[in-house]
Amino acid sequence: MRAAVFGASGYGGAELVRLILGHPHLRLVSLHAHSRAGEPVARVLPSLQGLLNGELEPLDSVRVDADVVFLGLPHGASAVHAKVLRKRGVRVVDLSADFRLQDPSVYAEWYGEHGAPDLFGGAVYGLVEYARGALKGAEFIAVPGCYPTAALLTLSPLVESKLIELDGIIVDAKSGVSGAGRRPSMVTHLPHAAEGVRAYKVAGTHRHTPEIEQLLSSLSGRDIRLSFTPHLVPMSRGILATAYATAKDGVTEAQLREAAERRYGESPLVEVVAELPDTLWVRGGSRAHVSYRLDARTGRVVAFGAIDNLLKGTSGQAIQALNVAMGWREDLGLEQTGPWP
Amino acid sequence: MRAAVFGASGYGGAELVRLILGHPHLRLVSLHAHSRAGEPVARVLPSLQGLLNGELEPLDSVRVDADVVFLGLPHGASAVHAKVLRKRGVRVVDLSADFRLQDPSVYAEWYGEHGAPDLFGGAVYGLVEYARGALKGAEFIAVPGCYPTAALLTLSPLVESKLIELDGIIVDAKSGVSGAGRRPSMVTHLPHAAEGVRAYKVAGTHRHTPEIEQLLSSLSGRDIRLSFTPHLVPMSRGILATAYATAKDGVTEAQLREAAERRYGESPLVEVVAELPDTLWVRGGSRAHVSYRLDARTGRVVAFGAIDNLLKGTSGQAIQALNVAMGWREDLGLEQTGPWP
Amino acid sequence: MRAAVFGASGYGGAELVRLILGHPHLRLVSLHAHSRAGEPVARVLPSLQGLLNGELEPLDSVRVDADVVFLGLPHGASAVHAKVLRKRGVRVVDLSADFRLQDPSVYAEWYGEHGAPDLFGGAVYGLVEYARGALKGAEFIAVPGCYPTAALLTLSPLVESKLIELDGIIVDAKSGVSGAGRRPSMVTHLPHAAEGVRAYKVAGTHRHTPEIEQLLSSLSGRDIRLSFTPHLVPMSRGILATAYATAKDGVTEAQLREAAERRYGESPLVEVVAELPDTLWVRGGSRAHVSYRLDARTGRVVAFGAIDNLLKGTSGQAIQALNVAMGWREDLGLEQTGPWP
Amino acid sequence: MRAAVFGASGYGGAELVRLILGHPHLRLVSLHAHSRAGEPVARVLPSLQGLLNGELEPLDSVRVDADVVFLGLPHGASAVHAKVLRKRGVRVVDLSADFRLQDPSVYAEWYGEHGAPDLFGGAVYGLVEYARGALKGAEFIAVPGCYPTAALLTLSPLVESKLIELDGIIVDAKSGVSGAGRRPSMVTHLPHAAEGVRAYKVAGTHRHTPEIEQLLSSLSGRDIRLSFTPHLVPMSRGILATAYATAKDGVTEAQLREAAERRYGESPLVEVVAELPDTLWVRGGSRAHVSYRLDARTGRVVAFGAIDNLLKGTSGQAIQALNVAMGWREDLGLEQTGPWP
Repeated sequence: MRAAVFGASGYGGAELVRLILGHPHLRLVSLHAHSRAGEPVARVLPSLQGLLNGELEPLDSVRVDADVVFLGLPHGASAVHAKVLRKRGVRVVDLSADFRLQDPSVYAEWYGEHGAPDLFGGAVYGLVEYARGALKGAEFIAVPGCYPTAALLTLSPLVESKLIELDGIIVDAKSGVSGAGRRPSMVTHLPHAAEGVRAYKVAGTHRHTPEIEQLLSSLSGRDIRLSFTPHLVPMSRGILATAYATAKDGVTEAQLREAAERRYGESPLVEVVAELPDTLWVRGGSRAHVSYRLDARTGRVVAFGAIDNLLKGTSGQAIQALNVAMGWREDLGLEQTGPWP
Repeated sequence: MRAAVFGASGYGGAELVRLILGHPHLRLVSLHAHSRAGEPVARVLPSLQGLLNGELEPLDSVRVDADVVFLGLPHGASAVHAKVLRKRGVRVVDLSADFRLQDPSVYAEWYGEHGAPDLFGGAVYGLVEYARGALKGAEFIAVPGCYPTAALLTLSPLVESKLIELDGIIVDAKSGVSGAGRRPSMVTHLPHAAEGVRAYKVAGTHRHTPEIEQLLSSLSGRDIRLSFTPHLVPMSRGILATAYATAKDGVTEAQLREAAERRYGESPLVEVVAELPDTLWVRGGSRAHVSYRLDARTGRVVAFGAIDNLLKGTSGQAIQALNVAMGWREDLGLEQTGPWP
Repeated sequence: MRAAVFGASGYGGAELVRLILGHPHLRLVSLHAHSRAGEPVARVLPSLQGLLNGELEPLDSVRVDADVVFLGLPHGASAVHAKVLRKRGVRVVDLSADFRLQDPSVYAEWYGEHGAPDLFGGAVYGLVEYARGALKGAEFIAVPGCYPTAALLTLSPLVESKLIELDGIIVDAKSGVSGAGRRPSMVTHLPHAAEGVRAYKVAGTHRHTPEIEQLLSSLSGRDIRLSFTPHLVPMSRGILATAYATAKDGVTEAQLREAAERRYGESPLVEVVAELPDTLWVRGGSRAHVSYRLDARTGRVVAFGAIDNLLKGTSGQAIQALNVAMGWREDLGLEQTGPWP
Repeated sequence: MRAAVFGASGYGGAELVRLILGHPHLRLVSLHAHSRAGEPVARVLPSLQGLLNGELEPLDSVRVDADVVFLGLPHGASAVHAKVLRKRGVRVVDLSADFRLQDPSVYAEWYGEHGAPDLFGGAVYGLVEYARGALKGAEFIAVPGCYPTAALLTLSPLVESKLIELDGIIVDAKSGVSGAGRRPSMVTHLPHAAEGVRAYKVAGTHRHTPEIEQLLSSLSGRDIRLSFTPHLVPMSRGILATAYATAKDGVTEAQLREAAERRYGESPLVEVVAELPDTLWVRGGSRAHVSYRLDARTGRVVAFGAIDNLLKGTSGQAIQALNVAMGWREDLGLEQTGPWP
């Protein structure tokens, strides 16, 4: 299957290129970028020097010759290319936020005008562990955001199994700086970022909030509103989601864990771990680790989920979703864990 | 005033030595340590090479000749030396947990047997901003823990001003690794600690929990139980406390901020900041930054407090408390902010 | 081919386990360790949770049932097990220093008594790019040290091609902290290691010095003595070797580069790059990047080599050498680059 | 003495502001910046929130009302303001490269056209330990660059005392990323900078090269050309210079150390240390640590110098030079070491 990557100069695109090169059923046919089109691949993706020759091509959705195109573009831009590609019948795996939400008014509220309204709602939301059925044969996949992936993998089993109260859920997330993308800014400037931790876009202002609420609401059959607080911590990769919820009466810690084990028993890429997860353990791989505690003093559930934001949180999940869509083994090309430590 | 430091080889002790050297009314007369007694100061505290000669002395509370002794020792050990020193009439500033709690049964539950039960309750809890009256003239001071300092400076104005519900408070704290002390361990081993974030001692098991609850309960007149979740993030110094609470009906974000400004208006070492605080901004100094947000979607207060764990969280606060006890300017010797960035 | 790993709890061993799991011709049959024998694999190697069950076994060279055993043990210990395994006819890939040197008196000078003197000199020194012939069919391989790998890949083409003076060569190396191994110490303690850079074992005292000199002397036909200065920099993985040498009269920068390109033209795992190499570019992969500059003002060659110390510097090279020994494609199981960034 | 800081929004300027606030004889009268003029100080220098009110003013050298102006500006810009200020008789401490070199043709070669040629050569080069006489009463001071400070403090005693050959000197320097300034770029982007080490501007292309050569040439009475290789290591602050030179016949390690002790015996801010220096030990302070080794195997001197690039390498040295110019104690306001660890 011939694959092209749009946005290959970004971090998500770079990891996609690497994963496609190692995937037994995918053949990388072209890399595309916006401002860096025309530059040699070796300069843009220096770790691939000697492996990939040639240059980045422009984002030409009309002419790109591939069976599947991965779109690692900003929201807005993605929709425009998705529209062209879908019309041409090309399979699209979109890593942007353009097709993750189901309700156009929610999209409008958080993102503004949509770039391809007639396509809105047409993609399968590819949080694989909760979408295997819908993904089968899917030709248009919206890959979940990195924070939603960490939050949803952690919380969904508890919501599904009705072990927690739906009011008052809190997600306190800690992310590595690569989540901010490849464009340098004060936020990613090492002297500012390397010895400090800080929150940003708090109190209901981060755009991943409705995406987290959407799946939990759907699983519970009730509109859920939760508090989401992202933080930047001084590391390159990884997200730890620490989630808080009130346990329903009589719920035990064992039940929390069992609910997750039931949900993820057949999932090759989610592991329910006994210890508290560490983002280092999933760094460089496409696995998620989740873990559960009950604070008996306060009756509160404290749940943890760790992922690599660029793999299970972005590119690894994109491949995983395509694998399911194609009927391949779910973790094909994603088996290897990351280098450790 | 002649000052001695017990536990000078630890991080809290090392910072105390530095602060005492720069303090106009204190004269450092001796440094003491347990296992490193007899070693040259220059080897144990390499940044002080050329400034301090001589060797570390043993922990001899019977003979130490000083007007004030700072105890930077583990809990248990501290009580034993405090007892001897207090009997001799020496002023004691204790950085351990031995004299922070007021209720002996709470101490017993979280720490076990106490090393000097007759002295229990005899120290002033030195969270200066909430203890200026009690500290005046105090000869025996218990310096608050690092996490409690960050959590209490953040939450106390809201509790005092009755702006938040007392049930369901959550403190999600992120700490630099120096909080684990100078003894190497797997937790502080750079290859394990440098590219990962993880929680530890969660769900009501960290010993700083009752210390946070104690002051909030006292301020509110009601027993408060809260959830405290400490995390280690890959940096050396700093604590960010992210606190969550349900706002009382009708409370506005402005009221949150005003409550803090009222409380800290005259405090030279706590700043209510408009932006979200960054531990980098307080790194290397004895100031705290606090900030407040109201999430209108969920009615939840999200409050932030940032400190340097070894300064405002330990040694800077020790000096600050002594300043108040002696009637000196509260921030004497603590004026300078840390190097930035 | 059934493979066992001795020393699987160390960093080199952990990476070997990961590489073996991803290698098409190797099957991991058992993991062995000294002090952590009996512990669950999932606890010792947390990134492999869910992939590997069972426990670590003791270091039993008499009974281990495998076609090849990788020895990731300290020098001294390694020799003892190598002896037993070789007597049993088991293929051995030794990652220690025990069989890297050819001259027993040099070993004695730098390491002391040898653990299996009769086996000394019996292994092929597996710097693959310089040992393909000798490795063919080899049953006993000594994997080069991490610093020698970086230094030798960088300097050898210049020595071979007689482009530099043999006197006065300097290797100034910068290593990530994982090179110090998994045992915590002051040197690896994050608060000491994370915001500082320092040299150690300088001025002809680091044991990798004679290993670097050995191959360069052999290539030049003359005894070479060089200055080697290792530094620890605040990162987890990677080595950058900056090498200095006096250019022979009339030598050009192009010649330096061409010599390396000639040498590495057919090498899948060494890339001669135009830009100055960055250890980040080779992090998590088994590739080396080398690059060459001539300082026309001083007539000095400045050469750079970057590797991942745990992969091309240890475990990746072990697999690469075994691949050549077995007649497999040299980079089998090592194709994928590391996660980037 | 009333002090103003031009370029207060940069890192050098920010540290100057902090040092001036803590200096007993200096009073900070105004902060000036180019693009950030008009912004509140609290936003531009967030660690000073609550300590400094008001806004940054424009770079108005015609009207600034101060006894001394510190110029923390890029080269080129600095000369223009220095000219106006000097004409007005205002004391100038210039942190740029504009007045460090003595030979206008060297300036032209490395920097291009000079902004105030008639002023060229008019400043005292303020490497204090080598310029105390010239600095006395000086009204115009050129503060040395960060790399030259580290290199020169390390090498100068050896050159002065004629212990090393003047040919073949090498300086391999490792710098924290703050040396690249406050403007974000790919080089300072945390995901690229945090887990890699790399060289830049090598082989005689870094502009600090002639500045290092200038003083060594002057001390030796002979034109010296050396190799200077700067590296960026993943930390915020600090420079370690590792210098290599051939020892003259018969020179011992003790002689190296004694030469430095003679030179720095009366220097409060340079310490000759026995152990290998660590930039962490001088981080946040204005001290330098130097140390010397002789590699008996190769006859090579390996010398080390560690500084904080923003303090002894920039702002601390600026204050130190002014102290000497004014006849104040050399380390006035610079006594305190940095926070440790």
